[in-house]
Amino acid sequence: MIEVEVKAKIDDFNSIKKDLYNIGALESHTEHQEDIYFNSPIKDFAETDEALRIRKVRTKDSIETFITYKGPKIDDKSKTRKEVEVKIEDPEKVADIFESLEFVKASKVIKKRIIYKFEQYIISLDDVIGLEPYMEIETDIEEGNDYKAEIDKIFELFKKLNITEGFERTSYLELLDIKREKN
Amino acid sequence: MIEVEVKAKIDDFNSIKKDLYNIGALESHTEHQEDIYFNSPIKDFAETDEALRIRKVRTKDSIETFITYKGPKIDDKSKTRKEVEVKIEDPEKVADIFESLEFVKASKVIKKRIIYKFEQYIISLDDVIGLEPYMEIETDIEEGNDYKAEIDKIFELFKKLNITEGFERTSYLELLDIKREKN
Repeated sequence: MIEVEVKAKIDDFNSIKKDLYNIGALESHTEHQEDIYFNSPIKDFAETDEALRIRKVRTKDSIETFITYKGPKIDDKSKTRKEVEVKIEDPEKVADIFESLEFVKASKVIKKRIIYKFEQYIISLDDVIGLEPYMEIETDIEEGNDYKAEIDKIFELFKKLNITEGFERTSYLELLDIKREKN
Repeated sequence: MIEVEVKAKIDDFNSIKKDLYNIGALESHTEHQEDIYFNSPIKDFAETDEALRIRKVRTKDSIETFITYKGPKIDDKSKTRKEVEVKIEDPEKVADIFESLEFVKASKVIKKRIIYKFEQYIISLDDVIGLEPYMEIETDIEEGNDYKAEIDKIFELFKKLNITEGFERTSYLELLDIKREKN
């Protein structure tokens, strides 16, 4: 699966919610996401632009946990990349397995994500602890398909929502790391 | 979790089934297990005596899949070692993640396992494709507890079942590899 995704810094959540309402995007649900990222024993994922994480997702109805692997970005405007996500039963046991395989626990990213659906897109309003407000627009396509057309459509959707700047390819994990280094 | 486990080659399944009946062990169920083992990009698990596998377990009622990590054996008579097992939703996706992390698909081990329960023990009659009949007796204990006493009790149980030789610390994976190398 290829995850075609563009992220932008936004001014505030309330005004974007009005814009989402105006184009007819529907609020789906809210998730509390807690991500633990791991680094590889053979390479620095910050340099190879890969990611391995365990995500806990809490909604009002459930708690679910996932392993996610993300490959390097394959496009210079967006965050488009290979993504494999699989549901798991016990995040602590998976962390134990990763550490036994010599992967190293790196940073934590905690966010509240309000999720909207619009056509084939998932729009996320991300309130990440330690960062400014961000919005992501994402769609998944099969490997081998043309992702460039999808990226253009996502930028059109941003424009429709009055967002024409603030685009960001850096992950939340890295943005938090950069902020920590500055302090 | 520490998996305390002893394995022995047996003559045939039918006579051991009678012995199991005689001591009061109860047949639980039959599983078809299909294991894919992975090797690490940083070390040879055959040398470090570790294992990483994806196991598909098919019973008459269900199909379940697991990731299992096994640490090096910590005892020279038995197969006692750290074991972490976690249920997963999609084995193909997990294999994709492992391969993205540069783990290498090694051998497959396929077996029919008839499982008996006796006191705190799980007794498995293992009909592994390509190998002679084997039996394993296993119990799990918390890390930090005394496993040596448990090993002694397992050997007593083997004796009760008239098995006093044929003990084997080599894994099915390695036994199959050895056989392949000979041919």
